[in-house]
Amino acid sequence: MNILIDAMGGDHAPEEIVKGAVAAASEMEDTIISLIGPEEAVREELTKNHWEGTNIEIVPASEVITNHEHPAMAVRKKKDSTIVKGMNLVKSGEADVFISGGSTGALLSAGLLNLGRIKGIRRPGIAAFFPKIGKNDATLILDCGANVEAKAEYLEQFGIMGSIFVECVKGIKNPEVRLLNVGAEAEKGDELHKEAYQRLSKANINFCGNVEGREVCLGVCDVVVTDGFAGNVFLKSSEGIALAVMNRIKDVMMSSTSSKVAALMLKGKMRSLKSEFDYSEEGGAPILGLKGAVLKIHGSSKADAVYNAIRKAKVYVENDVTKRIETAIAEEQGRMKKKAEAVEDAGEATEA
Amino acid sequence: MNILIDAMGGDHAPEEIVKGAVAAASEMEDTIISLIGPEEAVREELTKNHWEGTNIEIVPASEVITNHEHPAMAVRKKKDSTIVKGMNLVKSGEADVFISGGSTGALLSAGLLNLGRIKGIRRPGIAAFFPKIGKNDATLILDCGANVEAKAEYLEQFGIMGSIFVECVKGIKNPEVRLLNVGAEAEKGDELHKEAYQRLSKANINFCGNVEGREVCLGVCDVVVTDGFAGNVFLKSSEGIALAVMNRIKDVMMSSTSSKVAALMLKGKMRSLKSEFDYSEEGGAPILGLKGAVLKIHGSSKADAVYNAIRKAKVYVENDVTKRIETAIAEEQGRMKKKAEAVEDAGEATEA
Repeated sequence: MNILIDAMGGDHAPEEIVKGAVAAASEMEDTIISLIGPEEAVREELTKNHWEGTNIEIVPASEVITNHEHPAMAVRKKKDSTIVKGMNLVKSGEADVFISGGSTGALLSAGLLNLGRIKGIRRPGIAAFFPKIGKNDATLILDCGANVEAKAEYLEQFGIMGSIFVECVKGIKNPEVRLLNVGAEAEKGDELHKEAYQRLSKANINFCGNVEGREVCLGVCDVVVTDGFAGNVFLKSSEGIALAVMNRIKDVMMSSTSSKVAALMLKGKMRSLKSEFDYSEEGGAPILGLKGAVLKIHGSSKADAVYNAIRKAKVYVENDVTKRIETAIAEEQGRMKKKAEAVEDAGEATEA
Repeated sequence: MNILIDAMGGDHAPEEIVKGAVAAASEMEDTIISLIGPEEAVREELTKNHWEGTNIEIVPASEVITNHEHPAMAVRKKKDSTIVKGMNLVKSGEADVFISGGSTGALLSAGLLNLGRIKGIRRPGIAAFFPKIGKNDATLILDCGANVEAKAEYLEQFGIMGSIFVECVKGIKNPEVRLLNVGAEAEKGDELHKEAYQRLSKANINFCGNVEGREVCLGVCDVVVTDGFAGNVFLKSSEGIALAVMNRIKDVMMSSTSSKVAALMLKGKMRSLKSEFDYSEEGGAPILGLKGAVLKIHGSSKADAVYNAIRKAKVYVENDVTKRIETAIAEEQGRMKKKAEAVEDAGEATEA
């Protein structure tokens, strides 16, 4: 297996990326970990991290796409960028998965342009694991922002893809899928969500109805389907609140001598609690629907997050998620076609 | 002034509603507080709460609309319900404001049907104060769910209404208004939000651009404009996370003897912290755009929340928010018409 990592993606690249890659490589003997980026810069970091003897390779790429560039234009222009070249290597089969903390827009553009969609998939979606608070587990949320302008068919396909991903990566049979909506009843929400509800109900997945924003973090299901706009609002606001609450607690604990003593007594516990709410530790967000495995990691990822993502990526590839999505979508479309033909036949029979 | 309260609205009605009303009445000598509901039930609760000598009146209404009924149908059928009658009393001027913890759908339906919209307002919006964490202040968010199917013009009007409400109720001159979106730049989001951005930029308010879900709770602005779907997702997910985080902290603090000791040392501080995150304490959510003042309080409201809402309602009425919105919308539409005429004139001049 060959896991390819964008050495230049994110705020702490290449230092933290290379550090995380070396840490993972030392534990994964059967896997080649390739770092893509300007050769000299990558080699310099590798040397600092004593990479001798690991299965790490360098894939040279001279250009980097930044967050400040127009994604689609940058992807068209920078043919030798880590992101464009990375996608091409997945397409050619030279890499089994591509991990990057770079521009999400550029990853989506290059994903569509260079790697392409799975046959039958209308739009790829970004999926992220969000903590089930207090349960040491996580819910897959998709789409987290790839498509701010969604259609009901996309949401249906997100349900199918999310279900397969969770089944493969977490080994949950028939994972529970729900639709993020403003109320529990089928008729809640706007036209988009009403139609999505109907489509998800008919899809070959374990669809259990709507879920409200309040209940997602309680871990009531395994997969939450949402449009990219609401999904983005959900994730960012949850992240913001969790962080603000934890920061306020810190303030309160530092506000007097007695509270400082109490804080000392709770220190270890509070730290592990903080990591419970941190969804960036969940090992990267797969862009599902592309013709190959791509994992987007947070731009702020440090070595630990890179290490986690590499380990998750391995499971992703081993379970051949892409192929399974392709098969499921083909089956779904076959089923739909058959149903449409049956309806047509019935119509003709009635007419006759 | 006459403040009218739905004695039967909410999970703890009539007990907690009446209790809160009596508490407020004992402090507000110049204001009549009317409780609307089945006379005997209301009187019974009043007696328990020693209401003698307060300026409380009972307005009889024999029916109650529950959360399980279809809102629009219930409003049409139950003419003597607390909600329908309450709206009619605001319309006739017998009440200056109506407060209810009853069905949001029924309040919106009766608001539109019995009270009516302010001239020029396309859709009323539900506005709620959301805590600026750590700042002992709050941001007004609207729409929180009245219109899950929004148009850019509605969002523009929410911006104008929210700005006026905050200025009147909180005394902030030129409050900062932002649009909830998936990114900071003007071109972010779907068509709805792109157009709303343009409209808000041209409106006669202090529009400061987009805000992401992550930053709302940090209190970066005074008013956040959103469509009812995203607004609902934002509020509910934030509420869910804050509650889950606080509950986990409680768990952690109860998990060992030393942590229990630490918890005791922090007790008072943690309790005040919890109330910081509780937006239900903010005194009710105005339904802006109706031809009269209506405050929706949380269905779970207890006496304290009712008391707070009554005090906020007084400020709402004293500042004549409804009249000011009417004037601002008329001016806005006049401005738009003038601009359109100027463009037309310029076109004619060019042609000539």
